[in-house]
Amino acid sequence: MMFTHDDPILELTDSQSWQLLEKTQHGRIVLTAAGETDIFPINYLASNGMLLMRSAPGTKLAELTINEKVVFETDGISSDEAWSVVVKGTARILQSGEEIAKAEALGLKTWVPTLKDFYIEVKPERISGRHFNLGEQPERF
Amino acid sequence: MMFTHDDPILELTDSQSWQLLEKTQHGRIVLTAAGETDIFPINYLASNGMLLMRSAPGTKLAELTINEKVVFETDGISSDEAWSVVVKGTARILQSGEEIAKAEALGLKTWVPTLKDFYIEVKPERISGRHFNLGEQPERF
Repeated sequence: MMFTHDDPILELTDSQSWQLLEKTQHGRIVLTAAGETDIFPINYLASNGMLLMRSAPGTKLAELTINEKVVFETDGISSDEAWSVVVKGTARILQSGEEIAKAEALGLKTWVPTLKDFYIEVKPERISGRHFNLGEQPERF
Repeated sequence: MMFTHDDPILELTDSQSWQLLEKTQHGRIVLTAAGETDIFPINYLASNGMLLMRSAPGTKLAELTINEKVVFETDGISSDEAWSVVVKGTARILQSGEEIAKAEALGLKTWVPTLKDFYIEVKPERISGRHFNLGEQPERF
């Protein structure tokens, strides 16, 4: 067990949520624009209190994440426990050569073997995490 | 490989997307209310062209999913391939005893071992799925 608790659900502290964010590489980013909500699976890297992602030029993701509010989620499930961390924050595309060079040095991988020119950084504003003890539903009397 | 293709990304047909939805049990539901977007990890079951989920009474999920537009996502990743299916649709809480009995008979499990009294059914309006051949990024010349 990553976190031990008697209740079915444990609300995680920010520090516990970051532990999970840092050891995971795969999540989903949720964007809302013009009343339309979209969700994209994405590889990411948690570094220095930020989330870093990459996107191909011209994708919806790249277009929408310029100064947009985003929601990011990652989770994990095993036979007896599960967890989920949600980050709400602001995304921006890295612009300066120095920022991009730093981001490249972190070695973030993408899902798709094409050239990926945009680095997107999500600055967290709110983080929430939950850890679940999995188990059978109690009998109903 | 679940789907063979030469390009990095294959846009899946509805039928291919349903294959993936039906063999998976764990996804995320995205809700937007009053300008606030939330995402919840959830177990689900694809049955008869619908997605079925369960939620505890009094949760945000149960409150928000009465006749709300929702986005649902599930994905999978292995060493050399990945996929994601997104369903946009309308959620409603099952009300009639007959509907609830049918839903119970499907044996949908929840993450948390407490009594779960609400069944939520998502009627898909749009489905999109993508399959990715994973690989290294090509060299940049």
